[in-house]
Amino acid sequence: MNPVPTSENSSPPVYREIAEALRSAIASGELSDGDRVPGENDLMKRYGVARATARQALAVLINEGIAVPIRGSGVYVRTFRPVRRHGARRLSRDQWGNGRAIWQTDAGDRPFETDGVGVGEVPAPDYVARALGLEEGAPVVRRRRRYRLDGRPIQLAVSYLPAALAAGTRIAEPDTGPGGVYARLAELGHAPARFTEEIRVRMPSPDELDLLELRPGTPVLDVMRTALSAADRAVELNEMTLDGSAYVLQYDFDA
Amino acid sequence: MNPVPTSENSSPPVYREIAEALRSAIASGELSDGDRVPGENDLMKRYGVARATARQALAVLINEGIAVPIRGSGVYVRTFRPVRRHGARRLSRDQWGNGRAIWQTDAGDRPFETDGVGVGEVPAPDYVARALGLEEGAPVVRRRRRYRLDGRPIQLAVSYLPAALAAGTRIAEPDTGPGGVYARLAELGHAPARFTEEIRVRMPSPDELDLLELRPGTPVLDVMRTALSAADRAVELNEMTLDGSAYVLQYDFDA
Repeated sequence: MNPVPTSENSSPPVYREIAEALRSAIASGELSDGDRVPGENDLMKRYGVARATARQALAVLINEGIAVPIRGSGVYVRTFRPVRRHGARRLSRDQWGNGRAIWQTDAGDRPFETDGVGVGEVPAPDYVARALGLEEGAPVVRRRRRYRLDGRPIQLAVSYLPAALAAGTRIAEPDTGPGGVYARLAELGHAPARFTEEIRVRMPSPDELDLLELRPGTPVLDVMRTALSAADRAVELNEMTLDGSAYVLQYDFDA
Repeated sequence: MNPVPTSENSSPPVYREIAEALRSAIASGELSDGDRVPGENDLMKRYGVARATARQALAVLINEGIAVPIRGSGVYVRTFRPVRRHGARRLSRDQWGNGRAIWQTDAGDRPFETDGVGVGEVPAPDYVARALGLEEGAPVVRRRRRYRLDGRPIQLAVSYLPAALAAGTRIAEPDTGPGGVYARLAELGHAPARFTEEIRVRMPSPDELDLLELRPGTPVLDVMRTALSAADRAVELNEMTLDGSAYVLQYDFDA
């Protein structure tokens, strides 16, 4: 069933076979969100294996992020419903142009909030200056915040805007008002006309592990967005770090 | 400097501080691709720490995927240049309509190849049937393959097309000819007109670890693409599993 030869021709270790059986049960819906996965004792009995083997099998599912251990209770199929982040729709002018927060598009009816908002003017770091077409060290307005959904932190974001555009405006205040930064940029004559998003994936840094309250072994998505005005001027760089287990990113485009 | 309070107010452990210093050296370009990262002995001397602490600091960088241990030699800033996968441009009709492989857009001048090509007719799994608007178990043509760049496996892909469209055509042969599957679909009157890509990130399964020859701790990207014809018929579902350390995904769109 493998598309290409595996690195070993002998049969896989027993713990992998057990993990595969559990994975299939989850994929087929036999075990669904929030269900308890059979525990070590169940697996020992069912497969006639040692506790260490049962534990290894469960560890595989946990490492893959499809099951979560709850201390003192057992292992459960993961329950947080991922956010569907719809690349283009959420950034459409119809949203921010009508005073809606971009986040409302992602969250739907689920409760979301921001915390740790920090706004200030700083010299542009090297890569920020490059992205915004500024001299290195030119002043930029930096906006930092963390997003929570269903009470769980799921994203860190840091935006940079040229101070020449944003200083002294509502963009440099903690609350940017209806429609947020993009609505304010539009009022200033620099409405975003198009966006580029770059996506990378990696394991979190220790700080990110703390701030996003990640379980060990959870990767993060880096989304780096540049907003360009109709005059092709880069008006914002937004560096986002997403809890990889909390998101599905969607992009639609024409052939 | 943190956007929100960290979970601890005391200063971070020494190994984290050392890791942060090394990370900064890499970010600033002081240490660049392929450079040797200072070893345990260097770090012990420079920071006056025990070997275990130096080792922990290096482990942080390795876990984050920004450094690679080479057995018997040392730890190096990672050298593989990631592939920039440009969501829309690579799937433009200008590409496959002119006999170009989609992969040529990604790879540029770098040598790429496919292996493990497997083509056959199978009953549609549940989620495939749903995506293609077929009855569960309806026959589909399945195409599996692995992609290598610079000799390194970087992607596994499995495409499904309704057998009603594809069976008996060149789509069901190992070599689909110039412009690939999409060019053949166009000849059959079912040219893809638009695409949806869904991106998820997770840790690899043991099989994927083998097939993509991943270093432990490397996440994978799941990219699930649906191709729709002008008549809004889903003509292909392509499930791709990407080595997360080998890719930058880029999407451009309008406000």
